[in-house]
Amino acid sequence: MPEAEQSEKALSRETLAELDRTDPLARCRDHFQLAEDLLYFDGNSLGPLPKTSREHLHRVLDQQWGEDLISSWNSHGWIELPRRIGGRIAPLIGADPEQVVVCDSVSVNLFKLLAAATELRPGRRTLLCQADHFPTDLYITQGLAGLRGQGYRVGYVGVDELRDYLLDPERGSDVAVVSLGQVDFRTGRLLDMAEITRSIHRAGALALWDLSHSAGALPVRLDEHDVDFAVGCGYKFLNGGPGAPSFLYVAERHLGRAVNPLAGWFGHRDPFAFNRDYLPAVGIDRFMCGTPPILAMTSLDAALDVWQGVSLEEVREKSVRLGDLFLRLVAERCDGLGLSPACPADADLRGSQVCWTHPHGYEVMQALIEHRLVGDFRSPDILRFGLCPLYQRYVDLWDAVEILRRVLESSIYLEPRFQVRSKVT
Amino acid sequence: MPEAEQSEKALSRETLAELDRTDPLARCRDHFQLAEDLLYFDGNSLGPLPKTSREHLHRVLDQQWGEDLISSWNSHGWIELPRRIGGRIAPLIGADPEQVVVCDSVSVNLFKLLAAATELRPGRRTLLCQADHFPTDLYITQGLAGLRGQGYRVGYVGVDELRDYLLDPERGSDVAVVSLGQVDFRTGRLLDMAEITRSIHRAGALALWDLSHSAGALPVRLDEHDVDFAVGCGYKFLNGGPGAPSFLYVAERHLGRAVNPLAGWFGHRDPFAFNRDYLPAVGIDRFMCGTPPILAMTSLDAALDVWQGVSLEEVREKSVRLGDLFLRLVAERCDGLGLSPACPADADLRGSQVCWTHPHGYEVMQALIEHRLVGDFRSPDILRFGLCPLYQRYVDLWDAVEILRRVLESSIYLEPRFQVRSKVT
Repeated sequence: MPEAEQSEKALSRETLAELDRTDPLARCRDHFQLAEDLLYFDGNSLGPLPKTSREHLHRVLDQQWGEDLISSWNSHGWIELPRRIGGRIAPLIGADPEQVVVCDSVSVNLFKLLAAATELRPGRRTLLCQADHFPTDLYITQGLAGLRGQGYRVGYVGVDELRDYLLDPERGSDVAVVSLGQVDFRTGRLLDMAEITRSIHRAGALALWDLSHSAGALPVRLDEHDVDFAVGCGYKFLNGGPGAPSFLYVAERHLGRAVNPLAGWFGHRDPFAFNRDYLPAVGIDRFMCGTPPILAMTSLDAALDVWQGVSLEEVREKSVRLGDLFLRLVAERCDGLGLSPACPADADLRGSQVCWTHPHGYEVMQALIEHRLVGDFRSPDILRFGLCPLYQRYVDLWDAVEILRRVLESSIYLEPRFQVRSKVT
Repeated sequence: MPEAEQSEKALSRETLAELDRTDPLARCRDHFQLAEDLLYFDGNSLGPLPKTSREHLHRVLDQQWGEDLISSWNSHGWIELPRRIGGRIAPLIGADPEQVVVCDSVSVNLFKLLAAATELRPGRRTLLCQADHFPTDLYITQGLAGLRGQGYRVGYVGVDELRDYLLDPERGSDVAVVSLGQVDFRTGRLLDMAEITRSIHRAGALALWDLSHSAGALPVRLDEHDVDFAVGCGYKFLNGGPGAPSFLYVAERHLGRAVNPLAGWFGHRDPFAFNRDYLPAVGIDRFMCGTPPILAMTSLDAALDVWQGVSLEEVREKSVRLGDLFLRLVAERCDGLGLSPACPADADLRGSQVCWTHPHGYEVMQALIEHRLVGDFRSPDILRFGLCPLYQRYVDLWDAVEILRRVLESSIYLEPRFQVRSKVT
């Protein structure tokens, strides 16, 4: 650990600048279009525009769609994109490429995988969700249970109670699938995928992990940890663009029998034979549904270029250091200003974000944004800051905490304009 | 009708050029990026690039995503796009705007609406499909029936047998929903939406129309014909770009009770409250699911600009004339060359395409494409040509039929290279 961090004296901007000078990921920032004066800590909501995505989209518009039109499905390989991009995401999540495909939204993919899980575990009627799971994961599970009827129900359990729930012979034996997020979207808590997946399997259930806040943020090891299903987001740490398509993962051992209820033509074994009866494609392709959104796909595809030569271990190492330093700076410089840490202090239990509660959380975040420090607010009172080692600098932490301190000290956030609620928070 | 068409003497290129000179839609071609030497008759597979979409996408990339990042959800109205674009499509399909939203793919939206129909007609277990419906419509229905179990089944009926099927007391009373395409994707046959919807309602069932081959091609009157549900495609006659999002329509009378089983967070009444339980949004918003794909949405949004000041009656009138002339030219100039008309001769029964069968249909289409005449092949032997009055010229018909005649006369299509099968046909 560098001397700067070991030192007992308070941190300075210069010690952080020194970390930037030796940061092996510093070169990656240049891949992104980012204003020099912007402190962007919201890459876990929407990753910034990679320059390569911009160029690639122009090419797809002008040459592929604009000139080559329909023939691009073959000549420019549009038809291959869902699998090809899936194959590029696979190493980021510790998966064999044959198990990953890019299609639809996280929500739609959750529905497919939950439904597939119920078919693989007939007779079990509980779809068990982490109680503080991201809302769409909960809602989709509720929607599926409602559609299936026949006694299907959604269960909710706190992560720390999950093991006991599964060990309870009566309750555990009814669980078909457990749905969890690897990193909690509010608190940033990082779960132990290996241990939890084992306990799910011991109960005879299947494990569905949402990687929205972990893929691209830390090493994920789906194959190694024997995960059954996973979904993840294309527009957060993967920088695929607003509303980018999602990826989904199905373990190879399930691919022969897992049924996708959203049996669209792109999941058919031979879509252009135009046969009457659905015959699922062999392998992961069966989890596709409708025609892939090519513009969105190509943006995500190009965005993956920035990972060339980047090791996720390095990303994680920098993310941990960014988080530790951010927490320390706030403790040193914002003491008594109403912030309470809301993320784990232990980096091993924390994903790639830090957060604090504040009684005026919403208003404070609006004031920070006006001062060019962009994080986000999560109801009811959380200020959340994403850590994105590919483009964040250590000095950004210093500058962010300075803005945070000034906003809190000045109480400017109490001005009426910061109380106006936006539709999206 | 102009003298040129009434004349008994054979058509000439000059008579067609005269029609172009007086065509009120001729000005619209300039909205599109289309090579001068390209005869593009495949706008019913993939509409060409509108120049405005190109410009708008550049703005969204550079300014909205690139500079304003996450705040664009509010400041550039990303959050409003699904409803706003739905509202722009509504007049093209004869619908009140409160009933239309843009989201997901046609396949995913079919699933939502079929599921909603089963909930509105409890006890009825047959999901009845037009036998020669587009495959994804069939497959999705099969997928839903499989997931629901409990005796749900898919029925298939030829359009001409539908009335009898529904009148049969035993069979008709079990039908929850009838799923049809307004225009047959192979033959171009145009169905009588008013009469068929009435006969569906008389049997107590609900009508789900797929407008993929009619929206933007002819006047559609969903509200007037009392349709219950509809879906349609963004990338054919609406020119939204490859894999553009789909639109869906739910009649206002069903909006209070219709349940979307794909209960994603964007269909929630208050998505950013992050509550545990799904509470459907009021109105059509409840049929959204995951985060909208903004790049794809903005392309479709901009593409709708080309409809400003365009009347669908004029579009239909030109489409009919293009079809009649195309059929007549082929009859006059390609006689004895192996083509058999496969679309209705009567324009009132025909959508916005013409087609012929040919024993070497696949190879002939590959040879035509090499000669810059782009239509598509539909298994097993159909040559399909879409008619798109916004950018096609009457002289294009002459030039297309000349290429068709030369390719057929020369038998060039028998050369081995035209037998190589592409993945997408």
